Amino acid sequence: MSTSLKDLLIGPPLPTHQLAEKRLNKIRALAAFSPDALSSIAYANEEIFLGLVIAGSAGLTLAWPIGLTIVGLLAIVALSYSQTIHGYPSGGGSWIVARANLGTVPGLVAGAALLIDYLLTAAVSLTAGVAAIASAFPVLWPHRVELALVLLGVITLINLRGLKETGTLMAIPVYLFLFTYLPMLAYGAVRAVLDGPGSLAANAPPAAQPLTTFLVLHAFAAGCTALTGIEAISNGVPAFQPPESRNARRTLLVMAVLMGLLFVGSIGLTQYLAVVAGPQETILSALARRLLGNGPVYLLIQASTMLILAVAANTSFADFPRVTALLAKDGFLPSPLFNLGDRLVFANGIIVLAVATGVLIVVFGGDAHALVPLFAIGAFLAFTLSQAGMVVHWWRERGSGWWLKAAINGIGSVATGTAVLIIGVSKFADGAWITILVIPAMVVGFLKIRAHFREVGQQLSLRGLPPNLKPFPPPRVVVPISGVHRGTVDAITYARSIARGVTAVYIELEPGAGQRIRQDFANWWPDVPLVILPSPYRSIVGPLLDFLDKTDRQHNDGQLAAVVLPEFIPAKWWQSLLHNQTAWLIKAALLYNRRRFGFQRVIIDVPHYLRR
Amino acid sequence: MSTSLKDLLIGPPLPTHQLAEKRLNKIRALAAFSPDALSSIAYANEEIFLGLVIAGSAGLTLAWPIGLTIVGLLAIVALSYSQTIHGYPSGGGSWIVARANLGTVPGLVAGAALLIDYLLTAAVSLTAGVAAIASAFPVLWPHRVELALVLLGVITLINLRGLKETGTLMAIPVYLFLFTYLPMLAYGAVRAVLDGPGSLAANAPPAAQPLTTFLVLHAFAAGCTALTGIEAISNGVPAFQPPESRNARRTLLVMAVLMGLLFVGSIGLTQYLAVVAGPQETILSALARRLLGNGPVYLLIQASTMLILAVAANTSFADFPRVTALLAKDGFLPSPLFNLGDRLVFANGIIVLAVATGVLIVVFGGDAHALVPLFAIGAFLAFTLSQAGMVVHWWRERGSGWWLKAAINGIGSVATGTAVLIIGVSKFADGAWITILVIPAMVVGFLKIRAHFREVGQQLSLRGLPPNLKPFPPPRVVVPISGVHRGTVDAITYARSIARGVTAVYIELEPGAGQRIRQDFANWWPDVPLVILPSPYRSIVGPLLDFLDKTDRQHNDGQLAAVVLPEFIPAKWWQSLLHNQTAWLIKAALLYNRRRFGFQRVIIDVPHYLRR
Repeated sequence: MSTSLKDLLIGPPLPTHQLAEKRLNKIRALAAFSPDALSSIAYANEEIFLGLVIAGSAGLTLAWPIGLTIVGLLAIVALSYSQTIHGYPSGGGSWIVARANLGTVPGLVAGAALLIDYLLTAAVSLTAGVAAIASAFPVLWPHRVELALVLLGVITLINLRGLKETGTLMAIPVYLFLFTYLPMLAYGAVRAVLDGPGSLAANAPPAAQPLTTFLVLHAFAAGCTALTGIEAISNGVPAFQPPESRNARRTLLVMAVLMGLLFVGSIGLTQYLAVVAGPQETILSALARRLLGNGPVYLLIQASTMLILAVAANTSFADFPRVTALLAKDGFLPSPLFNLGDRLVFANGIIVLAVATGVLIVVFGGDAHALVPLFAIGAFLAFTLSQAGMVVHWWRERGSGWWLKAAINGIGSVATGTAVLIIGVSKFADGAWITILVIPAMVVGFLKIRAHFREVGQQLSLRGLPPNLKPFPPPRVVVPISGVHRGTVDAITYARSIARGVTAVYIELEPGAGQRIRQDFANWWPDVPLVILPSPYRSIVGPLLDFLDKTDRQHNDGQLAAVVLPEFIPAKWWQSLLHNQTAWLIKAALLYNRRRFGFQRVIIDVPHYLRR
Repeated sequence: MSTSLKDLLIGPPLPTHQLAEKRLNKIRALAAFSPDALSSIAYANEEIFLGLVIAGSAGLTLAWPIGLTIVGLLAIVALSYSQTIHGYPSGGGSWIVARANLGTVPGLVAGAALLIDYLLTAAVSLTAGVAAIASAFPVLWPHRVELALVLLGVITLINLRGLKETGTLMAIPVYLFLFTYLPMLAYGAVRAVLDGPGSLAANAPPAAQPLTTFLVLHAFAAGCTALTGIEAISNGVPAFQPPESRNARRTLLVMAVLMGLLFVGSIGLTQYLAVVAGPQETILSALARRLLGNGPVYLLIQASTMLILAVAANTSFADFPRVTALLAKDGFLPSPLFNLGDRLVFANGIIVLAVATGVLIVVFGGDAHALVPLFAIGAFLAFTLSQAGMVVHWWRERGSGWWLKAAINGIGSVATGTAVLIIGVSKFADGAWITILVIPAMVVGFLKIRAHFREVGQQLSLRGLPPNLKPFPPPRVVVPISGVHRGTVDAITYARSIARGVTAVYIELEPGAGQRIRQDFANWWPDVPLVILPSPYRSIVGPLLDFLDKTDRQHNDGQLAAVVLPEFIPAKWWQSLLHNQTAWLIKAALLYNRRRFGFQRVIIDVPHYLRR
């Protein structure tokens, strides 16, 4: 039942040899790597609007200069990442570049920041995508959490199945988005020339707060989310057709230009036409409605926004498990994150991301605006460390013109580092403090995990073992019995097949019960000694452990004591609820009860299968 | 840590020999057995009031005749139970009487009805007790669920500790209740004579429904809860000082008179003075407030009401586990319900009752009125069956005057049986349907459980075994290894100490990894064969089970295959989250994977303890 349900949802297991990579041409590569970057404008615009509207029309007039500043930052970062593609043609994720050039701890900081970045990309994209659709159909607005979770479930299943043939499918939303948004912006520009400017003073709500420098920095910090996703191409250079490095750089250039156009175009039009959004609508929806009315074209725009955001969330499901797998491979995370699942994907990483995203969506009430303060700081921290790493990289290499390359990355690093500071300070109370606390905690966790695995590796190493291993002497075997029945027969018979020194033990809970057992037992096994242990406190585990401790101390001969447990396996699952879990309790006590541990003991389970 | 917390809350274990019973004189016995019965008036009055008030003042005038009818029923039932004490001096709970005289299935119906009765006594008493206090302090009214749960937690802990020395403590609320309520009713009677009757027509809210026969029967059915608890003395005859039977009957007489006085007195005064309660107050609180004002005497009345209700809930915690233990002793419930816990109480029964009560309180929003429809039907069904059983008992005995005794019990049985019908029909839609569904389901469950245990007993019986048991031949041993390390050393060395035929198995997840392992392994154990199993679908369990199936089929010699598993036990609990649970998965598959099961296999755990 459960297996077939799993097969239905996820598909049957795939053999390892099917693991292979297909190279992408530039058109496909743009679709594969840009959804996160391009869709960022959906929430970045919204954040700038929400950050400024509280200062009324005076605030909203600043959207344009803030937008231009962010586009300037975009240009710097794109140029800088173009250098990374050059320097790391085999793929230069922040974690790889920072670790190789700055050391383990900065690398781990970049890794933690990246993981948070991907997690929030998933959460913010899903909630912003649902907000785009709920702007068109206000009846959906109260159900945004449920809708976002359904979308999350679908994306999780798609990713657990593995993405072999869905590459083309994913390209459709990206080009749909470009081919609806860019014409809309062009049409808007024409309309702007024909209609002339709107009046923000007339449309904006009254100012709730004065226009302070802090408020402006706050809006800038929020708008920085427009840049998230720009690093994707530099991680995936080997997926391009040769010449990989050059194709990747050209694709990055195209993507950055598109990002800039979309961002500047939409923010400029919004301000020029004095578009203001109501409480249950996004600013991009308000702009589209202003230009296109409520008709089918408007709905197409909103649908394509939602689709590209869903695809952007989907890219997190490819990237996050890849980073956790890299960390697990180096021992900073447990190895199941590195193991390929049935469908040749890192299934455990996908599940971790899905659960964490779901928790974020629920805790933050499906509101992208509440999630954004946690977001930008992770992305920009990863940018900063990766570009600082590139500076060291060029300095170490000292190839021709190294100082120019180092300078470009240095400028990028300083610019994004400044942004990190602005975001951290201005968004601290809004939620950035969570990210600022979580990143160091993750780094400490990574280091502790690796320390543990190293310690285990040393303890398990065979170094120092004598070259000739002596076999253990045959074990002393103890068989705890609950009575004389078929389970006892199996256990005693088995014990006698592996050792001579077999002792049966009966824990006497009711005074006097042992005598009856002793007679029965002697009839069947006159030559096996039976020890009856009184248990005044009615515990089974305690007296047994005491007995084992005592006999181990008496012998102390290097023999391992083995405990043979007859275990009944009922025919139906509910029946096991009816039996007391004594065998399980004894096993757990023998394995885990460290306080009692002094001698190593072997546990032998002799199953007895019940019919019906 | 966890052990010491448990010791702090529950106390250290007690040895079995401390199990002994102290006899009770009549004063103490009344306190021990009557809280449930006496406190019933708190919710029975309330139910009659709520049942009638919807028909306005015309409805409320019927409270007095309904009250008198219920007192008549009380007299019949008390007389009938007095016969039970006579016939079963060793304790005649409904389950015992019904099973002995009517057969197993009626006995189980009575047992199920009793369990539901006790469960609802606990839930209704706690919620009604909290309602009494929240009537005095309206600020507590919205927090009734939480308060009831806290009270439940305290009572559960007290009972898990065992009640040795709390008998005297429990007597205080009972006598406090009697010595505050009876004087209040006497004072009320004087005031009634002096002040003359009040006008219900003036005080009652307008009728929301017409006064129908159904509505009257409905109110009567709800008022029947006044009788719950009356059977308690007949269950506990052996606890009385000798002559047990006579003392018990006298105590029952006193209790029944007190119940009648309290019930008739309070319901009569309420009607004569035309007291009506508001939405956040109980009718008894309204009566007390009317007579005593809002001063300390009123508060004392409410506090004593809450205390006796808490003590009544507490009696369920003595009775419910006793019935589950009796059922478990006869194989109708799993044996852990029959085992005495650390403190010589049936701890598992207490925990089951506490959890079920908590669920009821939460699901029904801490509202006694919503719970009562589930309540009376269980109690009256148990009454009916127990008294019908007594009729058969007297008929079988045919002692002197047996027909009179049989007639008394017969009348009781018919009267309570009629009440069951009235309750079942009139309260069906309010919630009685739940009880009507649950009781047969429980009976079916009891029978299925006993059938399972009987089946297991037969399967485990040694009957038919040959008198001389041949030992098994030494086992074939298979050691799955994940590499060549200290865990492997322990496992292989141990395997060779118990058998000659040892085979190591390596499951190759990454193609080619096996070759390295083979060389390492051959260096250490040149004489142990190593089988490398490819696993194209990256499953560890599947290829191992296939291998075991294949070799078992090849040999098919009666040898048991044993699987030796090296198991790492980390030093700290969180570290075990970091290791993949392969050993656990293999064990579970070997024990439970029935589809693959064909041959019995032994599982041998060789623990390897990690330091730090």
